[in-house]
Amino acid sequence: MAKSFEIVERIGISNTSISEAVQNLVIEANNEFKVAWFEVIEQRGRVTQDGKIEFQVTVKIGKKLFE
Amino acid sequence: MAKSFEIVERIGISNTSISEAVQNLVIEANNEFKVAWFEVIEQRGRVTQDGKIEFQVTVKIGKKLFE
Amino acid sequence: MAKSFEIVERIGISNTSISEAVQNLVIEANNEFKVAWFEVIEQRGRVTQDGKIEFQVTVKIGKKLFE
Amino acid sequence: MAKSFEIVERIGISNTSISEAVQNLVIEANNEFKVAWFEVIEQRGRVTQDGKIEFQVTVKIGKKLFE
Amino acid sequence: MAKSFEIVERIGISNTSISEAVQNLVIEANNEFKVAWFEVIEQRGRVTQDGKIEFQVTVKIGKKLFE
Amino acid sequence: MAKSFEIVERIGISNTSISEAVQNLVIEANNEFKVAWFEVIEQRGRVTQDGKIEFQVTVKIGKKLFE
Amino acid sequence: MAKSFEIVERIGISNTSISEAVQNLVIEANNEFKVAWFEVIEQRGRVTQDGKIEFQVTVKIGKKLFE
Amino acid sequence: MAKSFEIVERIGISNTSISEAVQNLVIEANNEFKVAWFEVIEQRGRVTQDGKIEFQVTVKIGKKLFE
Amino acid sequence: MAKSFEIVERIGISNTSISEAVQNLVIEANNEFKVAWFEVIEQRGRVTQDGKIEFQVTVKIGKKLFE
Amino acid sequence: MAKSFEIVERIGISNTSISEAVQNLVIEANNEFKVAWFEVIEQRGRVTQDGKIEFQVTVKIGKKLFE
Amino acid sequence: MAKSFEIVERIGISNTSISEAVQNLVIEANNEFKVAWFEVIEQRGRVTQDGKIEFQVTVKIGKKLFE
Amino acid sequence: MAKSFEIVERIGISNTSISEAVQNLVIEANNEFKVAWFEVIEQRGRVTQDGKIEFQVTVKIGKKLFE
Repeated sequence: MAKSFEIVERIGISNTSISEAVQNLVIEANNEFKVAWFEVIEQRGRVTQDGKIEFQVTVKIGKKLFE
Repeated sequence: MAKSFEIVERIGISNTSISEAVQNLVIEANNEFKVAWFEVIEQRGRVTQDGKIEFQVTVKIGKKLFE
Repeated sequence: MAKSFEIVERIGISNTSISEAVQNLVIEANNEFKVAWFEVIEQRGRVTQDGKIEFQVTVKIGKKLFE
Repeated sequence: MAKSFEIVERIGISNTSISEAVQNLVIEANNEFKVAWFEVIEQRGRVTQDGKIEFQVTVKIGKKLFE
Repeated sequence: MAKSFEIVERIGISNTSISEAVQNLVIEANNEFKVAWFEVIEQRGRVTQDGKIEFQVTVKIGKKLFE
Repeated sequence: MAKSFEIVERIGISNTSISEAVQNLVIEANNEFKVAWFEVIEQRGRVTQDGKIEFQVTVKIGKKLFE
Repeated sequence: MAKSFEIVERIGISNTSISEAVQNLVIEANNEFKVAWFEVIEQRGRVTQDGKIEFQVTVKIGKKLFE
Repeated sequence: MAKSFEIVERIGISNTSISEAVQNLVIEANNEFKVAWFEVIEQRGRVTQDGKIEFQVTVKIGKKLFE
Repeated sequence: MAKSFEIVERIGISNTSISEAVQNLVIEANNEFKVAWFEVIEQRGRVTQDGKIEFQVTVKIGKKLFE
Repeated sequence: MAKSFEIVERIGISNTSISEAVQNLVIEANNEFKVAWFEVIEQRGRVTQDGKIEFQVTVKIGKKLFE
Repeated sequence: MAKSFEIVERIGISNTSISEAVQNLVIEANNEFKVAWFEVIEQRGRVTQDGKIEFQVTVKIGKKLFE
Repeated sequence: MAKSFEIVERIGISNTSISEAVQNLVIEANNEFKVAWFEVIEQRGRVTQDGKIEFQVTVKIGKKLFE
């Protein structure tokens, strides 16, 4: 009975806040597979053409293997 | 007349945002002792059983000694 | 035709959230020069005299040279 | 003739020792694909309900592509 | 209802193995307070006068506050 | 409409230069999926049996999800 | 017979030098408990109102438990 | 007689190699001010629309003040 | 009403001590602009031709914008 | 009367455990010179041809000079 | 039968490219002892008096002991 | 004509200051071989039996090969 996890690294995006970028990404991942935990490892961004901030958040996600 | 500080490392939790997790933790600590400054050093989290995001934020807090 | 960028390191402040501190800083920088991208590298803060949290966010900003 | 590798990040678990947590994880991975090498990057754990230590070890595994 | 944790940093010692040094330290801490999780952050050591290896392991321990 | 990216970590090899090892790896990855960006994170190598240098370069590659 | 240590993180201050800030802090701590060893991990400072430098030094201190 | 240096962080670009990206950037900076030394701190890149690799290299440059 | 800071990275030099190298650099910078705080991030040096030690200290300096 | 130490970086190997790889290496070094202390800085490994795990542990060893 | 390695840290120089600086250094080391593997850990440089770039590359080299 | 350097890692000790610990160590090394440059990478210490501070400073020293 295997009990190991794989860590997947993804980047989520939001025009509102860092927390929403994390939330969007983790909820979306949780529809594909069960998210055991996550860790935010990088917070970058850019200014969009209409002058708004786009937050880009890199997140490591723990995903159970062989469930 | 001593002028040193101790650094305390704590983890705050919020279902809303990273900033609220920091805020909850720092306000709570400030009721115990005077918070001189803080630094966010880790941002993790998990998906709760009802499918919401729980943010867990590790914060180093500077606390004046012998006040 | 030069195609290099300079990285400027700034600190933004907000009493509301980490994301607002980033937003204030990046929008303000974007009025001075074109912000190509940014990266959040430190999140600190303090408790103000009226007991509120002040977020202080250090951001590296990519700025095009010789435009 | 491609000669590149992919790095997979996994977490192994053992109630006995850090080395056994690595061993379980790497042997299990080696049944799926050929493990070229591995690197231990994090060692965490918890106390189980019956008061034993559970070691959780994060390992980066090098895996040959297109074999 | 407070839900924050404090992180305590300790060093455990064993003449047998790294895992035993962690185990000794975490079991001992768990007698004082409930250990929520732990993370090994440094592994050092020395040679004792009778020529044996002494392992010294630095561990961060998550401890629930106000339980 | 999902807008997240996954980060894939690969190792490329060249007997000529670090840049060629990156180039080989990224071009090869770009035949499998659209490479959004990449970052070189480690540069290692060995001396081959005929006395030449083999460069081994670890690269993180940003790959768009659900395109 | 317990043989573990706790690591305490403190900040010392001096208007003269980095070494004096460390010295002040460690001597002061050694009056409270036996300092087993220390490690300097951060060196910051500010200019005081009368134009002098104030050195602020963060130090991790090893302290024997249950002595 | 001041003897201090300022460190400027810039990003250079090349379609050929990492070394050429550094070279372009440092030569260009050396036309503006005397480059005392430099250090490469990040190597990123992207695939251009015609399928070529663009290397983007972040470099810290030491520049003498008040010459 | 802008409330942001810029971080400037400089290197100070002294033949006497690390603290004097910091002091020289920060006092000199404080004559140009108001130094809000500083952080020592690197300590290097060399042996001069007459066999003395020259300390070279890299310091990040916080400087208020738009004062 | 010199009182300085040199730090030597070595890699030890074991098919049994991380602790044994450290032990083998440190005992062997201690036959050459007096080991003052050691620190484990990297833990890697590979799967041998007969399907066993080989642990490779990088250790920094403190060695007294001019004894 | 000892199976340990020592890690030697060296700096190679080239006026052409980072890869050539590595190559020069590793080939030269391989004439002294058998190079088991190497890792590039720092890339610095300067502008020479005739306006050319000199690359200085710090490399860790694995060298078999007691061969 | 070889132009490479080796990096030697040593620890110097002083009861007076961090700078003196560096100075003692570098002057002593410079009597053995020509010190090209040095970098302070760790600052630790202990309280001696007569209640004084002993500073222990880890320094990387650049040493020309084949001079």
